[in-house]
Amino acid sequence: MKRGTLFVVSGPSGCGKGTILAEIRKDPGVFISVSATTRGMRPGETDGVSYHFLTREKFESLIRNDGVLEYAEYCGNYYGTPRQPVEEHLAAGENVILEIEVVGAMKIREKCPEAVFLFIAPPSLSELERRLRKRGTEAEEVIQNRVAQATREILCAKDYDYVVRNGELADAIADVKAILRAESMKIAKNQMIIDEVLGK
Amino acid sequence: MKRGTLFVVSGPSGCGKGTILAEIRKDPGVFISVSATTRGMRPGETDGVSYHFLTREKFESLIRNDGVLEYAEYCGNYYGTPRQPVEEHLAAGENVILEIEVVGAMKIREKCPEAVFLFIAPPSLSELERRLRKRGTEAEEVIQNRVAQATREILCAKDYDYVVRNGELADAIADVKAILRAESMKIAKNQMIIDEVLGK
Repeated sequence: MKRGTLFVVSGPSGCGKGTILAEIRKDPGVFISVSATTRGMRPGETDGVSYHFLTREKFESLIRNDGVLEYAEYCGNYYGTPRQPVEEHLAAGENVILEIEVVGAMKIREKCPEAVFLFIAPPSLSELERRLRKRGTEAEEVIQNRVAQATREILCAKDYDYVVRNGELADAIADVKAILRAESMKIAKNQMIIDEVLGK
Repeated sequence: MKRGTLFVVSGPSGCGKGTILAEIRKDPGVFISVSATTRGMRPGETDGVSYHFLTREKFESLIRNDGVLEYAEYCGNYYGTPRQPVEEHLAAGENVILEIEVVGAMKIREKCPEAVFLFIAPPSLSELERRLRKRGTEAEEVIQNRVAQATREILCAKDYDYVVRNGELADAIADVKAILRAESMKIAKNQMIIDEVLGK
């Protein structure tokens, strides 16, 4: 069984990565990892879909037993990537996608050097600002903070393998699909295909 | 102007790479390199399309002036890849494809370390043999030689970046297109996009 590939996808808030991944998720053979957290469930959220909602004791037990690929603590709550489902889906030959911010992504880079890193960029900072403002839900100060945060994140794109610039959504979806398809043909994943072709 | 990517495509006789590249050639932004040779033009061949037909003096002058990316001598004739058209199309932002056998490919690897190497494999050796036989133009001994040569070539696939197994032609074409598309998003090619996004 050919092992799947681990993809780590980052990009600033408003870059459209959620919309892109919602489309990628429809492809068979793709598993999108669900993060774990110790924060309380909010209205409209579903356990195992929005997050795996864990107790603090359970999360700390996972940390001790190398059961999370990366984690961080924000505002007194843990957030992290459970290792077991990622490993299981990779072993089953599926591509696994982690949507994760830049600091967590670089922790994955250390633990999983074979992972492939995609950065989704907005077409421009000014367009990102326009999109955030269009949502109409955020105070001006929040928007300015997000743009400043996006700037810091975009400077981290140099540490990724690929950068997809999300100008037209359909193009960006096709870009991400092309990356997934191309990576499955990398020679490192296909040594056994050489043997198969030769009939060994 | 973003520079194009140099792709080197190899695969045994009968693997279908000619048919695949004929399809890829239709895409805008792709230039398929034409080899140079000192052998005589055959009926049905066109100068500049089948090959660039050169005199021995002209070819040796190219060799002396680093004007070929690689060359070899077979049966007293030179065959090689002229450097200038490759450089020009890359500089114009086009992807350039060299269709070249495994020994020549590895010479390109030394001269152009940034090039991307694709190996087109048949689904299996026995299917390759069936395809060669189906052409109906070759003596049994020629077919057996080709299968033996294919075996040696397929063992070189481990030195390529990607392996595309040509079972269904439409899939193989889509595979090669995905590789070209994905490679254009590699971060090494897109450092200036980060600056553009940031409005620098």
